[in-house]
This record gives sequence, structure tokens and C-alpha cells, in this order.
Amino acid sequence: MWKPNTETFLACDHPFEDAKVVLFGAPYDSTTSFRPGARFGPQIIRSESVGLETYSPYINMDLTECRVLDTGDLELRFGSPAPALDAVEAYAAAIAAQEKIPFMLGGEHSLTLGAIRALHKEYPNLAVLQLDAHTDLRQDYLGEPLSHACVMRRCWEIVGDGNIYQLGIRSGDKPEWEFAKEHTILHPFSLDKLYEWDDLCHQPVYLTVDLDVLDPSVFPGTGTPEPGGVSFDVLRQAMTRACMLFDIVGCDVMELSPHYDHSGISTAAACKIVREMLLALHD
Amino acid sequence: MWKPNTETFLACDHPFEDAKVVLFGAPYDSTTSFRPGARFGPQIIRSESVGLETYSPYINMDLTECRVLDTGDLELRFGSPAPALDAVEAYAAAIAAQEKIPFMLGGEHSLTLGAIRALHKEYPNLAVLQLDAHTDLRQDYLGEPLSHACVMRRCWEIVGDGNIYQLGIRSGDKPEWEFAKEHTILHPFSLDKLYEWDDLCHQPVYLTVDLDVLDPSVFPGTGTPEPGGVSFDVLRQAMTRACMLFDIVGCDVMELSPHYDHSGISTAAACKIVREMLLALHD
Amino acid sequence: MWKPNTETFLACDHPFEDAKVVLFGAPYDSTTSFRPGARFGPQIIRSESVGLETYSPYINMDLTECRVLDTGDLELRFGSPAPALDAVEAYAAAIAAQEKIPFMLGGEHSLTLGAIRALHKEYPNLAVLQLDAHTDLRQDYLGEPLSHACVMRRCWEIVGDGNIYQLGIRSGDKPEWEFAKEHTILHPFSLDKLYEWDDLCHQPVYLTVDLDVLDPSVFPGTGTPEPGGVSFDVLRQAMTRACMLFDIVGCDVMELSPHYDHSGISTAAACKIVREMLLALHD
Amino acid sequence: MWKPNTETFLACDHPFEDAKVVLFGAPYDSTTSFRPGARFGPQIIRSESVGLETYSPYINMDLTECRVLDTGDLELRFGSPAPALDAVEAYAAAIAAQEKIPFMLGGEHSLTLGAIRALHKEYPNLAVLQLDAHTDLRQDYLGEPLSHACVMRRCWEIVGDGNIYQLGIRSGDKPEWEFAKEHTILHPFSLDKLYEWDDLCHQPVYLTVDLDVLDPSVFPGTGTPEPGGVSFDVLRQAMTRACMLFDIVGCDVMELSPHYDHSGISTAAACKIVREMLLALHD
Amino acid sequence: MWKPNTETFLACDHPFEDAKVVLFGAPYDSTTSFRPGARFGPQIIRSESVGLETYSPYINMDLTECRVLDTGDLELRFGSPAPALDAVEAYAAAIAAQEKIPFMLGGEHSLTLGAIRALHKEYPNLAVLQLDAHTDLRQDYLGEPLSHACVMRRCWEIVGDGNIYQLGIRSGDKPEWEFAKEHTILHPFSLDKLYEWDDLCHQPVYLTVDLDVLDPSVFPGTGTPEPGGVSFDVLRQAMTRACMLFDIVGCDVMELSPHYDHSGISTAAACKIVREMLLALHD
Amino acid sequence: MWKPNTETFLACDHPFEDAKVVLFGAPYDSTTSFRPGARFGPQIIRSESVGLETYSPYINMDLTECRVLDTGDLELRFGSPAPALDAVEAYAAAIAAQEKIPFMLGGEHSLTLGAIRALHKEYPNLAVLQLDAHTDLRQDYLGEPLSHACVMRRCWEIVGDGNIYQLGIRSGDKPEWEFAKEHTILHPFSLDKLYEWDDLCHQPVYLTVDLDVLDPSVFPGTGTPEPGGVSFDVLRQAMTRACMLFDIVGCDVMELSPHYDHSGISTAAACKIVREMLLALHD
Repeated sequence: MWKPNTETFLACDHPFEDAKVVLFGAPYDSTTSFRPGARFGPQIIRSESVGLETYSPYINMDLTECRVLDTGDLELRFGSPAPALDAVEAYAAAIAAQEKIPFMLGGEHSLTLGAIRALHKEYPNLAVLQLDAHTDLRQDYLGEPLSHACVMRRCWEIVGDGNIYQLGIRSGDKPEWEFAKEHTILHPFSLDKLYEWDDLCHQPVYLTVDLDVLDPSVFPGTGTPEPGGVSFDVLRQAMTRACMLFDIVGCDVMELSPHYDHSGISTAAACKIVREMLLALHD
Repeated sequence: MWKPNTETFLACDHPFEDAKVVLFGAPYDSTTSFRPGARFGPQIIRSESVGLETYSPYINMDLTECRVLDTGDLELRFGSPAPALDAVEAYAAAIAAQEKIPFMLGGEHSLTLGAIRALHKEYPNLAVLQLDAHTDLRQDYLGEPLSHACVMRRCWEIVGDGNIYQLGIRSGDKPEWEFAKEHTILHPFSLDKLYEWDDLCHQPVYLTVDLDVLDPSVFPGTGTPEPGGVSFDVLRQAMTRACMLFDIVGCDVMELSPHYDHSGISTAAACKIVREMLLALHD
Repeated sequence: MWKPNTETFLACDHPFEDAKVVLFGAPYDSTTSFRPGARFGPQIIRSESVGLETYSPYINMDLTECRVLDTGDLELRFGSPAPALDAVEAYAAAIAAQEKIPFMLGGEHSLTLGAIRALHKEYPNLAVLQLDAHTDLRQDYLGEPLSHACVMRRCWEIVGDGNIYQLGIRSGDKPEWEFAKEHTILHPFSLDKLYEWDDLCHQPVYLTVDLDVLDPSVFPGTGTPEPGGVSFDVLRQAMTRACMLFDIVGCDVMELSPHYDHSGISTAAACKIVREMLLALHD
Repeated sequence: MWKPNTETFLACDHPFEDAKVVLFGAPYDSTTSFRPGARFGPQIIRSESVGLETYSPYINMDLTECRVLDTGDLELRFGSPAPALDAVEAYAAAIAAQEKIPFMLGGEHSLTLGAIRALHKEYPNLAVLQLDAHTDLRQDYLGEPLSHACVMRRCWEIVGDGNIYQLGIRSGDKPEWEFAKEHTILHPFSLDKLYEWDDLCHQPVYLTVDLDVLDPSVFPGTGTPEPGGVSFDVLRQAMTRACMLFDIVGCDVMELSPHYDHSGISTAAACKIVREMLLALHD
Repeated sequence: MWKPNTETFLACDHPFEDAKVVLFGAPYDSTTSFRPGARFGPQIIRSESVGLETYSPYINMDLTECRVLDTGDLELRFGSPAPALDAVEAYAAAIAAQEKIPFMLGGEHSLTLGAIRALHKEYPNLAVLQLDAHTDLRQDYLGEPLSHACVMRRCWEIVGDGNIYQLGIRSGDKPEWEFAKEHTILHPFSLDKLYEWDDLCHQPVYLTVDLDVLDPSVFPGTGTPEPGGVSFDVLRQAMTRACMLFDIVGCDVMELSPHYDHSGISTAAACKIVREMLLALHD
Repeated sequence: MWKPNTETFLACDHPFEDAKVVLFGAPYDSTTSFRPGARFGPQIIRSESVGLETYSPYINMDLTECRVLDTGDLELRFGSPAPALDAVEAYAAAIAAQEKIPFMLGGEHSLTLGAIRALHKEYPNLAVLQLDAHTDLRQDYLGEPLSHACVMRRCWEIVGDGNIYQLGIRSGDKPEWEFAKEHTILHPFSLDKLYEWDDLCHQPVYLTVDLDVLDPSVFPGTGTPEPGGVSFDVLRQAMTRACMLFDIVGCDVMELSPHYDHSGISTAAACKIVREMLLALHD
């Protein structure tokens, strides 16, 4: 009774030893090129999760029966991205070393690089499955190679040709799209191809969700809203399938920037996607 | 000319004696579990209805040719739900006693119980048709049996097994979903089944619309936005069919909480659904 | 280096002499009947366009390769609409006289009349293709014949029967819908018919987009949100087809009222539609 | 019981015959030069007045004991200002003809001209007491002589030199300030001089309050917020004195534009100023 | 490292045994008569406190050197106020029983009654020092005696005549003000009298701060903003004096309703007042 | 007529050769520790300046008679602060080299360091006059020495003891306040001391205004609102005096973060402060 206040994502206070998934927040957004604020994502996903049930009628599972621990937010300093990436890498590595799944709540998308670094060491044949509105394949952004607009290019340098699967993409500059043709597996505009990618069943997979893959009507609270995205149910079903079918060894849900959406529907969508992913990871 | 200001929903000032439908607001939201504010729904539906035409091109009817009186808001005290329910029951009963259709603008969903009590006395074989994101079938919520999360359970205690039809449902705890399997007719996620329920033609029907059945992108202004709902046109068509085909003896449109949507699109959606329902009730 | 600050829509600073399209803003909204604010549309489309790429993966074209000059906003006085219409007419005429395409960013829809006046003088067999939620065919609005609710009626007085094509319409009073049956070519609710209107290939076409043709979930930032509109991709594809297939001699994108949408998704949608139209005009 | 909904400002439903003050709304804002939206002022002052007590502890009076009728809003068409001014003039004249005080809720400040026209006919030695951030003394604004930026110049043409008293002014162009030196009695920045103007006791006075005289921190919801204004209590005390001491034959409270203030504090300030003025008029 | 996330008010994680003050949140607002939402106060005070320093330059003290434990929020059910009051009473009593100071973060003001009940049992000669815009002395509100508008009347029934000190009051109905004259010590409009009330040094004092005592410009985020309040520094200084000088045996800070203030300044003011009170309690 | 759109701060398009002051924007905010968004400051100060008059009745001067050129925004990359600082330094140096006054619009406060570096080279006996809520004297912030929380510490390393004058300060950690006692001239809470600092007349002065020195009620749109600040008029008068009396060789106005203030009053305050400073620099 007389303890400091505890606040975790919906029911995610399973003891570490027995946990399968370890949630953590990564509040950093200093390289965001258009509208910053994704640093506030993890905290509000946690606090607003009380508006959500633990039970999913979609797949008839309940979060109270899952083994997830939410350990809170990393303390990341703003400014140069390198230290933030190192902190994420170290934390993800420590979780993976215990054979648990690190599940990061962003924060800006560049942080995915930290997690990929950690998991690639553990799983050298790692594949990356990216759902996103943007290619994120720039060589650099105004000279900064660690910008959120470059994260997948940096990941490609690690995992190599043919190991990045990109879905939902509908924006990027011309060189990025040309780069993708040669080096990644990119299917633009929809998530349909996910249902054909059986290859991904044979590799450990890092699943990264930039929530701006959703249509801005569903998810206005993000740094760079890109009209023409997918509906909530399309993303939800894709996440269920990916988490059930593939060998997910790490994942993240990024780019909720709640101050741009006073209605809270973006946060509600983020919370529900996280719940459905956590449940499916326990299937 | 020199009279106190009158404000009604769009053209709904038909004399009571000859009215077919009587609109009234029920500004109460004290048991709302997540985000309160539905008390402001009726007033803003009325004032923003000026942005809407009286004519519907969907069904080629005009509200100026209908017989509706908007009598304003009940004065409900906040806090304990019992007195508010009693007030709604008494008012709905008085309208029904004149063989007119009571049409309530909410306010939180729990108030539907008041109307059901009144109408079940008038129509003992009453069926309830519910469009909603949430089952609302809890036995109690933190000990409160009259919470908005329990309203359909309380209605079931009145109308009994097989008389509650639930559509669009996509949230609830596990016991609620199990309860529904045995006691109500629940079809989740979509409204499609409405087009197969011919049984409902043989009973007097109370139609209750929790507007959160709509997707949060369409209707962000509500207490508990639940991603993955139906589009505006899907709800509009369902309401037209239900109001034209069934013997509607009472109805309500609930859970607009306008302060969560500064854009006003939620209010616009609520107003238009109300207009389409009023028109179809006169078909 | 030491020059006054320049701000144009995304890369649209092509020299006038060689330009194909001339963009200009028309910040006026004094006859708006419900919620004013469209005057702020042009400025914010320009400043927020930095969040958009110049490259379109939809049609593999890049704005940096197009010939567009953004000349900024007209200075329009608020109040009576006549002077604003005259100013728009004069400016559009001056652009058309140089055999360039005037592309107006609104501002309220009534201003389209100014552009139509100018272009009808240049192209006497002009057709008007209108995408809109509202018919805009009133004879007058509370006595004002130049209201934004009357703009298409005024245009019809210029271009005559059978030369106004209306798509996406879902609102208007009864007389407007009856007028349309006799005098315009109106297909309500969707944009599907665009793909059947080959006749439009044989006339010079003025294309006018009232962005409220979009569903309010996609485009909440407008004066009169009308639920039940089209999705972003449906509008985008229609615009691409229209701009590629028809002989567009003038066009406009109207009725963004940004203060009603703090999330910025309406502005993002407007910017992207403008980009796709500009690109397709160069196909 | 079964009557159309009535909504008036706080308890202001006194029978016309016996009323001392007649409230009415004037929802028009078409000449607003910066941010429109004052049209929504009267309606929200009315609906939000429920958050206010009828009793004033400042002067120990209660609105329930006053004789005020709120007759609702005029129907004003948007666009050209002339018809709106005529409608205000006619309505104010009709009230004044019954020896009652017209009290207008704006709406933009230009409408004051309509009321002054009406009252000057009734009271040829009329003085005008203006509290405002802006001089409003322009000859014209972009060619429009009836703009809200010109209203006091137009009033001066009616009441003549030395009959306009201006307080709280802190903005205007240079020619306006020079005009004021010769033709009006202007004391800038504060309201202090009100306590010295005993001359005003010998004339019938029209009191016009542009609420932007308040500091933007107190009253952010207005078209042209001008930093450096007075506090709420300073304005409240000035209004109490003016309404108690002078022979007020007409008055108005203008320029609440509620969409620019989601917190509602501007509306709360407007409501309370109106209450205090109504009470003091009955002293 | 691998523990569930902890979140407390700024540095308030002192072990219970040695704590002097125990903070807890009381998220309940069901009887709020105008705008609900104070339930979200405690959570956001906690999460936004990171924007504040632990050090106060005003009194040269640092929160890291104080003995405060933040134990999180009570779980209160919405609807009828009685159970919420009981829960607060029980919790406050348990803290007081350990000779620690209970410090409640509201939530609506009615909850203060629960704490007063608990502390009056412990300290029969308890005085109440209330800073508030509203008298809160109604006998009942629409029949509800436990409404937030009645809280001080209920407290008076416990502590009796002459033991309630009211400051900053500027609203109430006439009977409330008359009641105050006979039964409480009420000084309206300012906090100045605090500096004269030496009597309060001789009694144990419960200090209750309804943050709407602040001017709405400083604190817009509250249910019933009442123009004409005190500045931040005036409240801050008063709190420092009261907490240093008097024998405070319990206290609360109530009525932050954050959804009405997107700028966050209300939350910032609440956090800083709480910090200054906590520091002064350790002087 | 046919030129790309130009947008400058109110009338600031004087030819460079003859300009006395050169305005430029510095849109960077990557080290902001609490709420980012100051990058949007310069653009909105420019676009909203149209709501302001060029004439100041306070000092009877007009901006149209001043010699100011607004050259637009620097292109700064987000992330690591070093390149942004270098860009600001280079630009300010280039302006100063032409014996003109660089006037920076922020952006976060850390950028002031770039300008100080440039001006200290030009003026080795440079003093810094800082108006701010925060000391900004940290040695580092989470390891980052170039954070906005450290900017004055870095400036002190350049200009040395006794050359930084700090006013309005009301926040900082304990070591910062102790550092100030020994190394800077800090007067907390008010700006009063400015009127006693005649020493500053004998040195070239860089004037830096962190707008959060204003009270959050006046200026809510900033990253770290700190209750208890000064009023608009107090700041305005101080700026007039400083710019008239001292030898200002460079200046800046920083930390407007407009997305946190939908009412626009923060931007209005920023614009008016900039106008008054520009005018006073020409006295």
C-alpha cells in the first residue's frame, strides 16, 4: 500500500524472470525533420491505456494472461542522436540476452537503428519488416546520417540487400525509391503483400511499425502526416498475422506525437495496436 | 418578435399535439468511466444543426415536412445515476403515453435504461437494437450497477434473453462477451447482420445508437474512442433501414462529447445521423 | 543572400516567362455561411508544403522538373464579394492571356466565379468540372447572390446548360437538387462517373475542387464539414486522371480553413492534392 | 412543458412590456480584417452563461430581480456590411422607440454603427463611450468604409467632434491617432480617465465595449489580440461605474470570437461583464 | 533495473516510514456541475512535474531534501459521491494515524469532505483554511447534498461556526453569501487577510486550495473558470506563509481539469504550487 | 508582378546596403529538454505580423520609417547542436562585419551562443543582457554541454565574469543559482534592476530575450512555461529602454513554440515585442 506510484501499460507488470516480452519507452525526437513531439509518445501510451480493455475480441485473448513487463522509459538526452542510439542498443541487447523480446515504444523512428544493432548481433540473419509511410532510405538528411529520415538506410548497412521488407510506403524522394528497387523489398501503398511473404517465416524478424503508415484521419498525431494511408483494421490484422506467424525477436511502435491530436484518437490507436501485438506474440 | 430566444434542432418546432416524434436532451455523464463530457452533447447538436440542410438527397425527404418537436433538455443533477434515470423514464413515459416517439439526445449511454424502462411498460414485447463499440454488459463497474458500462445488462434484466440485438461491438471484457453468447444476439465489428434480421419487424423496437460505433476518425468526440469502427455511410444506411423498416417506438443517439473534437466533425456526424433518423421515421 | 525572404509552394519558383502554371492565393471568406476562416488557406498551404516531398511515387514525377511559379496572395478586401471577384477575374485573365494556366488556392468557393468569368472570355465553350460536397446552386443566400452557396448558379449563368459537371455532391436544399436535374450534370456521393465522362475531353475545362468533397475525417479543416465524403486516394486518383486527360485551362483548390484542424492533416491533404494536380498538368 | 426549447442569457426572460433592457445577438463578422469568427459570440455567451451565478457579490445584486429580455439573434447575411447595419439599426430603433435599452451582443465591432444610427435619431446629443484596444478611426480599410476598422470614424460623422470618448486604446495607424487628437477624446492604454469624465453625466450615452480592450491573457478569444490590455477587474469596475453613473441609452459587448479560445475563459469573461453591466443598469 | 515503471511527483519517493507528507491522487469528478474532467488532474500533475526544477529560488529549498512519498491514485468509482468520499476518508485517516500529513491531489473539490472527516476525528479543534473562487456553501445542488458546490457547507456541519476561513471568494448565490456572514470567516476577492489571521496559529489547520482561486488567465484548465482571480505569485506567497506558519495537518490542491487547457500552463501552475507547499511544509 | 512570393516581418524589406538591422530566423530546437517546437517560431512571427500595425503609439514611431531587412530563415539541420551553432555564428558574423545589427528570431535559446561567439570577436568587451525565466547556467544537461539549459554558461566562458546581466530569472537548479552569485549579475523575479544598470551604457551589449520571461498567462506558447513571470507591458517598457539607451550590437527573441498556444496570443506578444525593439533601435 505505501509504495511509490507504479504505472505500466495495461496489466504489463509480469515479473521479469518469467516475462516473454519487455516493454520500454524511448522518449527522443531530436532529429525529427518536420514536427517534433514523439518524445511524449511512450508516456501517454502508458497513461491512456486505461481506456482500453485487456481482452481482445478479435483473437479471443487477454493481456492478463500474457507475460509482459513494462520497465518504463530510458533517460535519453536530446540533441545529437548517437548517445540515444547507444542507449537503446544497450537496453535492447540486455533484454535479448535474456532471451526475451524487446518491445520499444517511440519516440522517433531513428531509434529503431539502436535496436537493430543489438538484435543483429544476436541474430546475424535478421530480417526487418517495416510498416511506414516513408521509405526512410536517405543517405543523409541535411548532412545528418542518423536522422529519422535515414534509419532504414542505416539498417540496410547492417542487414544487407534483400533483408528489409517495406510496406505501406507512399513517400520519399526519387533517389530513395530507386535505392529501394535495388536493395530492399518495397511494396508501396498497401499492406497486401504481407500475406504472400512466406520467406519471412524462415528468418528471425525485427518488426518496426512507424504508425504514420496509418491514414492521417485515423492517426493525426504524428510528425509528418502523409495522406493516403491504411485503415486501423488493415494494420491490426497485419500485425496479428506478423506476430503470430513470424519469429519476432524484437519490435517497436514509433512516432506517436500526441500534442498534434487533442482528441486522443491517435493514442487510442497506438494503444490498441500495442495490445494486439502483445497478445499475438503470446499465441 | 419580442419573445425569449428559441433554439431547436433544425426545424423541429412542430406543435406537440400533432407531433410524431418528440426530441429531448439528457445532459448527464457522471458514471462515464474514461473521459466525461457527454453532457454537452445535446446543446451542441442543437446549436450546430444550423450547418446542416433540412433536405436529404439520400432519401429525398425534407425535415420541414416532418412532425418533430424539440422540447429542450431535462434538468438532471450530476452524481448518483438513479435520479437521472428516473427523470428520463418519467419524461419518455409521458411522451409515449401520447403515442409519440421519444427521441433522446445524450448524454451518456446509461440513460438509455430510463427510456427502456418507460417503453417496456408500454410495449412488453419490446426489442432493443443497439449499435455500439462496447458491449455494455458488465454486471457492475467498480461496484456501480448503473454505470454506462452496464446499461445493456440492466436492459437485459428487463427485456430478457434474445431481445437485445447488438451490432458493431468491438470491445468489452471477457465475461461480457461470454454473457452475450448466451443472452443477447451480438454480431461484432460490422453492421452487416442488420440486413438479415427480419425478426425485428415483428416487435416494437427501441433503437439505441452509441455514436462510438463509428470509427474514431469519423467521430473523435466521444468518451472512449475505440479504433476500428464503421464509416459514416455505413451507419447512415443502417439507420435509414432500421427507422423505415422496423416499428421504432423510441430511440436515442448518445455519447457525443464535443470538447474532445475542436474540429466539430463529430457534432456534424451526430447532427446528420439525427436528421436521417428523423426523416426515415416519417417515411 | 541578402534579399527579402521568399516563400513559395514547394519548389514553385520557376521564371514566369517559361512557366506553364501560375499559382496564386485568394484569401477571402466573407460570404462563408457557417464557419469562416478559408482566408488562411493559401498561406498555410504554402508554409506547410515543406512537410511534403517534391516527388510523387504514385505517378513517378517530380515537382522540381515542372514549370510552376507561385506569385503569392492577392490583396482582397473583406466584406462585399464584388471587389474580390473582380480582382480574381483580372488576375486570372492576365495569366490566361499569357497562355498559362491560372491555379488559384482559396479562400472560399465563391471566388471561382471570378476565374470562370476570366476563362470563359478566353474559352467560350468552357466546361466546369466541380468536385464538392455541396451543390452551390442557390439563386441567392439570404438575399446575397454572390454567396459561396450560389457560386455554381452564377457560373451556370455564364457557361449555360450541360456545361457544369458536378461530382461528390451530398448536400443542398431541395430546389438546388431540382435545378441540377435540368441544368447541370450532377452525380452525387461518389466520383465514379468521372471515369465515364469522355465528353469532357473535347472542351476546355475549368477544374474546381472544393476540398470538402473529402470526408471530414480526412479533411476536418473546412467551413461546412459534410459527413459521408470520399477518401483521399479516391480524390487523388480522380485529380490525376482529370489533369492528365482533360484540357485544363484553369483550376482551383478551395475551402481549406486551417484553424478548425489543429492536427494539420487537412493542410497536408490540401498540399498533396495540389502537388499531384501540378504534376499531372505537366504529364 | 411541451414547448420548443427556449435558451436565453442567464435568467433574461422578463416579459417585453415590462422590460428595461432588451438583449439581442448580432452574428456577423464579414469585414473582420484579421481572424473572423465573432459571429459565434452571441450564441456561446448565451449557452455558457449557465456556468455563471445570477448573483454578483461585487455589488450585491441579483439578475433574477432585473427586467431583461433576451430575444435571440438577428438573422444577418454575410458579405456586404450595409444590410447587416440596416438590420441592427432597425432593431435597435424598435427597442429604443419603446423606451427600453437595446443591448447588443456581437459580432464584429462595425455593427455598433447600426445601433448608433438608431439612437442618435432618438437622442441627438448622444455621446459614445468606447472601450477598445483599437482606435477604429480609419477613413476606410482597403477601400471599404464600413469595415470594423472604421466604425468609430463613421460614428464620428454622426455624433461629431468631442462626443466620442475612447479608453484603453493601444493600437492604430498614425493617421488615426492624429485624427483622434483633433476630433475625439482619446486616453490611451488604461481606463483611468473614466473616473474623471463627469461631463458624460450630462448627455445620453451609448456604451460600446470591444472586449479586446482586455489583455489577451484574459481574453484570448478575439479577432485581433493586442498585448498590453487591462485586467478583468479593471474593466468590471469601469463598467459598473459607467452603467450606474451615466444615462446609458444603448450598449453593446463585441468581438468575442470563441473558436480561438478552447479553454472558454474568454466566454466566461464576456458573460460576467454582461451580467455586471445588466445589474448596474438596474441600480 | 527490471522493475515495473514507477512514476511519482518530482522526487517524491521517500520511504513511507520516514516520510513527513504522503501525496495521493483522487481522480473523481462526478458531481462537477459545469465542466467535468478534474479526474485527470492527479495523473498529469505527476507526469508534467518533470518540467519543473526540484529547487525553489523563492525560499532556497530543494525537494530532494524533503521527506515526501507519492503513493499514486486511489481507485474511485464514478457516479454517486458517497463511496468516493468514504475511500478518501479511509485513506487520509490511515496516513494521519501514522502522524504524517495527507496531501491530496484532486479531483473535484467535494472530496475535501472525506479528508476533513478523517482529520476532524484526529484533531477535534480542526480549522479549515479554504482558498477558492466559490463559496461552496450551498445546502444542496439540485437535490444533491454531496455536490462539489456544497462541500464547505458539509465541512461546516463538522467543524462548526467560526472554524472555516475563506479567501479569494468571488462567486456564489445570494443565500451562500448570507450563510457565510453568520457561520464562516469569509474575505472575498483577495488573499490579503491571510496575513492578519494569527488565530490560525493556535489550531491544527486543514488547508484546501481550489485552484480556481487563481485568475482564469493563469489557470484556464478548470471546471468553472471565474474571472477576476488572484495572480500566481499572490497564491504562491500565501501558500508559503500558510504552510510555514500554521500547523498544517492535512491539505489538498483541487480542480485542475487539464483538457480545457492545451497549453499546459494550468498544469505548470498546479505543479509549482504543490512544490512550494511541499517545501514550506518542511521548513 | 510576376515574381515568387515574398514574405517578411511587417514592412522589413529595406535594401541591405542601407539597412541598420538584419532580421533572420533560426528554426532549430533539438536540445529542448521539455516541449520542443520553437523551430516554428520564426515562420509564424513573420506570417502573423500582418495582424499588427507598423505604428507604435507607445513611442510614436513607425516601422515603415525604419531600415530593417528580413532575410528569412537559416536552413539548420536537426540533431546535434554544433552545426546549427556554427551556421548562426557565421551568419551573425557576416551581418556584423557590415556594421549592421543581427537580430535573430528563435528557435531555442541555445542558438544565442552562436551569435555571441560572432559578436564577441567583433566586440571583445561585449556584455550580455539576458531576460529569461531560467538561469541557463548548467555545466551540461544529461551530458550535453550545448543544451539550451547551458547556453549562458557557455556564453560566460566567452565573455567572462561580471559581463552577463540576468533579469526575470525564477528557475534553475541549486548549483546554477550558486554559480550566478559568483559569476554573473543576476536579479531574480522582476526586471526592475534594469533601470539601475547604468554600467551597461559603457559597453557594447548583446540583448537576448527568452520570451518565457513573460508570465505563462501572457505567453503560454513556449517549451517550459514557468509561472510567476512579468506582464507584457513590463517587458515592453524594458525593451524600449534597453534598445534606446544601450549600444545594442546584436539581439534575439527566442523560444516561441506556437503549437502550444492555439489562441495565437503568444505569437501576438512576440510580434509586438519585436516591433517595439526594432523601433527603439532606430531612436
